[in-house]
Amino acid sequence: MTKASFVDESYLPNVKTWSEYYRAKVGFRNYWYAACLSTEIADGDWLARTILGEEILFRRINGKVHAIKDRCIHRGVKLSNRVECHTDSTITCWWHGFTFRWTDGAVTNIVGAPESKLIGRAKIKVYPVDEAQGMVFVFIGDPGIDVPPLSNHVPPMFLDEGRVIEGEVLVVESNWRLGPEGGLDEIHRYLHRTSTLLLETKATMPLGYRGAKTQCEIVDGEAWPKGIIDRFASDTMYFEVDIDTAPGAVTGVRFADTGTKKKRTVATSSWLPGVLRVEGFPEDGGCFFEFYVPINETQHRCFMMISQTCRTPQEAAQFRSRYKTRWRRYAVQNFLRQDVDARESAGRFYQHDRAWIEEILTEEDYMIIEWRKLSSRHSKGVQTPDHIA
Amino acid sequence: MTKASFVDESYLPNVKTWSEYYRAKVGFRNYWYAACLSTEIADGDWLARTILGEEILFRRINGKVHAIKDRCIHRGVKLSNRVECHTDSTITCWWHGFTFRWTDGAVTNIVGAPESKLIGRAKIKVYPVDEAQGMVFVFIGDPGIDVPPLSNHVPPMFLDEGRVIEGEVLVVESNWRLGPEGGLDEIHRYLHRTSTLLLETKATMPLGYRGAKTQCEIVDGEAWPKGIIDRFASDTMYFEVDIDTAPGAVTGVRFADTGTKKKRTVATSSWLPGVLRVEGFPEDGGCFFEFYVPINETQHRCFMMISQTCRTPQEAAQFRSRYKTRWRRYAVQNFLRQDVDARESAGRFYQHDRAWIEEILTEEDYMIIEWRKLSSRHSKGVQTPDHIA
Amino acid sequence: MTKASFVDESYLPNVKTWSEYYRAKVGFRNYWYAACLSTEIADGDWLARTILGEEILFRRINGKVHAIKDRCIHRGVKLSNRVECHTDSTITCWWHGFTFRWTDGAVTNIVGAPESKLIGRAKIKVYPVDEAQGMVFVFIGDPGIDVPPLSNHVPPMFLDEGRVIEGEVLVVESNWRLGPEGGLDEIHRYLHRTSTLLLETKATMPLGYRGAKTQCEIVDGEAWPKGIIDRFASDTMYFEVDIDTAPGAVTGVRFADTGTKKKRTVATSSWLPGVLRVEGFPEDGGCFFEFYVPINETQHRCFMMISQTCRTPQEAAQFRSRYKTRWRRYAVQNFLRQDVDARESAGRFYQHDRAWIEEILTEEDYMIIEWRKLSSRHSKGVQTPDHIA
Repeated sequence: MTKASFVDESYLPNVKTWSEYYRAKVGFRNYWYAACLSTEIADGDWLARTILGEEILFRRINGKVHAIKDRCIHRGVKLSNRVECHTDSTITCWWHGFTFRWTDGAVTNIVGAPESKLIGRAKIKVYPVDEAQGMVFVFIGDPGIDVPPLSNHVPPMFLDEGRVIEGEVLVVESNWRLGPEGGLDEIHRYLHRTSTLLLETKATMPLGYRGAKTQCEIVDGEAWPKGIIDRFASDTMYFEVDIDTAPGAVTGVRFADTGTKKKRTVATSSWLPGVLRVEGFPEDGGCFFEFYVPINETQHRCFMMISQTCRTPQEAAQFRSRYKTRWRRYAVQNFLRQDVDARESAGRFYQHDRAWIEEILTEEDYMIIEWRKLSSRHSKGVQTPDHIA
Repeated sequence: MTKASFVDESYLPNVKTWSEYYRAKVGFRNYWYAACLSTEIADGDWLARTILGEEILFRRINGKVHAIKDRCIHRGVKLSNRVECHTDSTITCWWHGFTFRWTDGAVTNIVGAPESKLIGRAKIKVYPVDEAQGMVFVFIGDPGIDVPPLSNHVPPMFLDEGRVIEGEVLVVESNWRLGPEGGLDEIHRYLHRTSTLLLETKATMPLGYRGAKTQCEIVDGEAWPKGIIDRFASDTMYFEVDIDTAPGAVTGVRFADTGTKKKRTVATSSWLPGVLRVEGFPEDGGCFFEFYVPINETQHRCFMMISQTCRTPQEAAQFRSRYKTRWRRYAVQNFLRQDVDARESAGRFYQHDRAWIEEILTEEDYMIIEWRKLSSRHSKGVQTPDHIA
Repeated sequence: MTKASFVDESYLPNVKTWSEYYRAKVGFRNYWYAACLSTEIADGDWLARTILGEEILFRRINGKVHAIKDRCIHRGVKLSNRVECHTDSTITCWWHGFTFRWTDGAVTNIVGAPESKLIGRAKIKVYPVDEAQGMVFVFIGDPGIDVPPLSNHVPPMFLDEGRVIEGEVLVVESNWRLGPEGGLDEIHRYLHRTSTLLLETKATMPLGYRGAKTQCEIVDGEAWPKGIIDRFASDTMYFEVDIDTAPGAVTGVRFADTGTKKKRTVATSSWLPGVLRVEGFPEDGGCFFEFYVPINETQHRCFMMISQTCRTPQEAAQFRSRYKTRWRRYAVQNFLRQDVDARESAGRFYQHDRAWIEEILTEEDYMIIEWRKLSSRHSKGVQTPDHIA
């Protein structure tokens, strides 16, 4: 039986200022989302992905990626069970031969019923697709809506000229919302004090920041993208904390020989519809982007993208080499993996709608609430079971 | 908690002419159903099967198969967990010794309570059983109903004298209704164009039929069995179909040397409560029967029975040999397997009740609708959760 | 979505005299429950257990076991995912450094937010813990309730001086209520007639008792513990039962050379909140205790504890040796395993709330009903989904 909502709406009065975010358990509609890396779909290849619960079939034809709903309109089988493309412009359902045009979804032919009135009239859903910086994006939107440019829904700097990006994709067993919230998690540095990335980069890792806490910038003007920036660099770091009666029982990480180079990140930010940006991570001058794309209620696909601005092909090649030898190992597979583990553990709790009421946040978590409010204010609709079933 | 229905009844107004069929997600009551092959239960052996969600225990005693509910009336354990038959006429529950008579289900003794008043009064449910053509059938019916003869609920010709039958049983991961609907699926030949059966038999496989489409015969008089026959042989075959801008991109299969023999089937039919008959498949003069028996909401047991009329034991032996060497391989494991795969793929869609509203049928699918209407008209009750829990 | 009850409350009118027991699908609150064997948690070690659906983290510190809720109050992760104890008195959440005191649950520090107002104010739930006879017990209770002594909630004799106890723990796939009911199951001896324990001990195993049936003692005065005792020794044993038309088809077990020693148990009893006691099992003078601790709706943890009263260390050592060589093998792994199998089979039936209405009990099962009534009368609250979520 189809439910009207993915969440228990009886809790809505408890989350008044961010109720749309609470409801967006499977994401916000009418946004661009990362679908795959460009390298995951070579020319002529196809790829089936579940995004915001919608099953979508991608195919690259003469360089350009197209996307349609991965379900035949006739009797509901997945086209991807057996992809049959008799021409470049079409896909034919393997069962009865319903044939759809990739560009507009029109039924061009039905092998088993060549004179059916459905031909030229019925359509399969088609999704707008864009590609940039080595990633393929898809727009999950309502019929008839004006599709905004991709640049509205990725963080500033992501599309910068000269930016070279490398990264990995993995499926994380948690609701997507724990992703962007982690990007504004001011107080979680304790988690990372054991990361091998610190040894590798001789980076400073305080236990936290003490100070004015005026670093929250809400980017919420007319223009897009919109997001929340946490500029923590202005505060004072601390490296020792007492535990109960034991003074200084926990300590952060500082190295003697860090020289003149800045060795810590200074700002993180989360952007609609759910993308993290960390400047200066994991290397100076670089920038880290992490895309959290809802798969369903309990899983999201995480794109961990490490980038550097490069002026020459040589610089680009050097960065790609650093990525493969250092950052994949120390940043992606170690430091960032700690955050993934935390999301998966917390995901078990937050899959219960009541968790969003029961959590006890600290004063330092207020940027997370700002993020929820921002997301709610700019909601253009949330995904519901009806969009998927 | 027990639900009143297996389906979302809010959709009933959308399926007015076949609402009983829509509701029969786990089958129609008061029909005979195939339980097992005769060879699956030797004399003295027992077999536990779930049919229309009911757990049933079969035992063959002195040649005759009996069936009772596979759940002790006392504290609900499955008798089949440890079958203990101290006499030919009874089965004793392994826990407390409740003893039931196979013929009428009466409690004859209780080992742990030999003086209980339940003895001679309480009963376990007993099911009518029949056996024919190497298959065991069970009647899933309401208390007190008159049990019709088996011949009412199997297709015409199935019980013909001289018919020799061989076959296989498998569990298919789809709702049972996709079975008989596939029997009337006029337009699915495209699926089979790659079957090795065509090479083996040099059979003609058109992409479809073009013509008067007057071939639907609704067998719905006073007498039983009742069904829908698709006599497609009267129409004109076609072997080429355009795909978008590519003329003749898909072609059917024709062999040069088919000689004078008819090399294609001429009629298929589906019969209540859910049995397919295909004349002339896979060999001339033969007949194929396929029984779709609901297990639960998402699975059915499929009996693929290939037959030939034989006048002598020699002919019978030759047919059995052909079955083992050719038809099992090319028909059951290849051609018919393609249909099973399609049912399983579609089953994923149709497990959502809304799918029955969302499907978009072609004009050629009208016999499927006739089948749904026929089934609804003759419904003698549908299986509900209360019948099972 | 949170349900208000674990059971379908529409059946409550059908179980009027024991409705609280029916509702206690995941146990009764405000009772002491067995948590683990003392040997399962060495000094400094920790152990995570789910009891009545509540996830609890135990740690032994300087000999004494402490218990807190295994979920950080901040953002809900399990503390046991990575146990970090920087001092003996505390545990620190691995994510943001929330630090809790084991004794009272107080937040003593937050590594990431050392100046938060939550420090010294917020608390994590702490559970009372006791330890006796080589077992650790935890009190699952409501806030503010007076915690009674452990002796109230274990069977008489369990805490006797000189009692030496050995045992095993296993997870049983059935609702917990089938445990204590089995302790009063007067008529299930048929199940055990094939146990190798009978051969080993040359014990008499009748098929049942015939007689006055006045053996039910309801221990229900002012004092605790409270329970139901089945004193079956006063009745006459029988060893032969007819099956249908076959006289004496089933027989019990009697040995010729049992000598003067009593070779059978004479009384069993079940005690709140769900503990079995069997005197004289498996050896004369010994006593068997079995604790059935709810894990969730469909599982319970079973503590099978075999004991003997010993006056000297030598006697104790001899008993422990007998346990390891004989009783573990013949009693725990054979005789008692038969009961576990029965519980698991029946558990499949009783997981449906309707089973409690559909069961057909015999006259001999009346002590089971007395148990249900006793439990209901003394209910101090049942576990509901709200206690867990």
